[in-house]
Amino acid sequence: MKGRLVIAGLGPGSEAQITPEVQAAIAAATDVIGYTPYVARITPRANLALHPSDNRVEAERARHALDLAAAGHQVLIVSSGDPGVFAMAAAIFEVLESDLTRWQQVEIDILPGITAMLAAAARIGAPLGHDFCVINLSDNLKPWAVIEKRLRLAAEADFAMAFYNPRSKSRPDGFASALEILKHSCGDDRPVIFARAVSTKQETVTVMPLSRADPDMADMRTLVLVGSSKTRLVEHQNKKWVYTPRSLQD
Amino acid sequence: MKGRLVIAGLGPGSEAQITPEVQAAIAAATDVIGYTPYVARITPRANLALHPSDNRVEAERARHALDLAAAGHQVLIVSSGDPGVFAMAAAIFEVLESDLTRWQQVEIDILPGITAMLAAAARIGAPLGHDFCVINLSDNLKPWAVIEKRLRLAAEADFAMAFYNPRSKSRPDGFASALEILKHSCGDDRPVIFARAVSTKQETVTVMPLSRADPDMADMRTLVLVGSSKTRLVEHQNKKWVYTPRSLQD
Repeated sequence: MKGRLVIAGLGPGSEAQITPEVQAAIAAATDVIGYTPYVARITPRANLALHPSDNRVEAERARHALDLAAAGHQVLIVSSGDPGVFAMAAAIFEVLESDLTRWQQVEIDILPGITAMLAAAARIGAPLGHDFCVINLSDNLKPWAVIEKRLRLAAEADFAMAFYNPRSKSRPDGFASALEILKHSCGDDRPVIFARAVSTKQETVTVMPLSRADPDMADMRTLVLVGSSKTRLVEHQNKKWVYTPRSLQD
Repeated sequence: MKGRLVIAGLGPGSEAQITPEVQAAIAAATDVIGYTPYVARITPRANLALHPSDNRVEAERARHALDLAAAGHQVLIVSSGDPGVFAMAAAIFEVLESDLTRWQQVEIDILPGITAMLAAAARIGAPLGHDFCVINLSDNLKPWAVIEKRLRLAAEADFAMAFYNPRSKSRPDGFASALEILKHSCGDDRPVIFARAVSTKQETVTVMPLSRADPDMADMRTLVLVGSSKTRLVEHQNKKWVYTPRSLQD
């Protein structure tokens, strides 16, 4: 049987947000590869090998997936959210390009998923209802200076902003710096949303002005959204909704 | 029965990309409201009223949806892609805020969908694999000068870029200006992707350097992606894949 590698997004956590095409790919797989908590979302069954692995070993995981597919397996590599947004799809192509002949027989398909910012935005209203940018705050693979530059330019462009990987145990200080830059560039009143573990039982979504944001409010399961200068709050049924209007006219 | 308004995303076109929670909301609705081609994606059935309407009447559509929900209907308002990305969720809150007491009994829920840029990116590789921005190129509701400023700042930040609504019959010239700014800011060799009607039978996805991009290659069903300075092309099985690596190191 010809080997195939499917790179799929499981959405942020809820079964109800996994697309039918991804469900079909799970059912067709002989092997599922991914970061341990994402592989744990796949129901075990006969004739399905689960290959969980640690965080930060994306290149090894990609190589393993390509090798299994080259050997004729039907391999599914899973990411949380969407595989193309700070996830496994880029890692697969980095590794594939390093040795194209080795994996020339492997068919590759990518199946999108609900990425965390869309699920988080839906819970709180429509904070990404106008132009926005999406920044990975981890400096594992890029200099911190690039992040700072992008934050300043994003504020100057008046984008709403979505931040992935705001903070981890190994990077406790970067997010504090990012918040300081944002307060300086966007002002104390700009709304910020901390959306943690959206669509799971542990979900919490809170909104506050930047002046009240504290670095400890974020961890690796948190998606942070910041409004543009036009973003508005509206209270309805005792809930604070946040939205960015479609028009820039006041 | 208490009225409820669900604002849902149908994904870019394929049934296989509609999430189970959106399918369930379709099944529970008494009324479906939306732009005509999106409502046409809903299978008619007894006891379900379909309310298609024209493009560019978002505020009237939002008011109609809120009023039906206030009258006790189970209303589903549908967008293509995700409802929070240049779609109906923001319009609902704009209208809601204009008369909060009128609709105070209406329960509101928002269900995310696969937005076009994720489906387009998945078809061609991982062009949004690093920091990126998302810009609506329609100047119906914002001055063209804002679009130009954002394009220049996005290029300076070295974001990959996703452009929605690049061109329409009523706005034939803006996209040509945008392409000129991008060529000037990003250089002739930067890869650009034209993804039209992704996940439908009419799907076409093409990649080329900016120097070969022509304004006529885009229409209202086209999603345009532009790489960052780090975006790479890799040929595999006679297909040109495009990806933006996770690392900025060369």
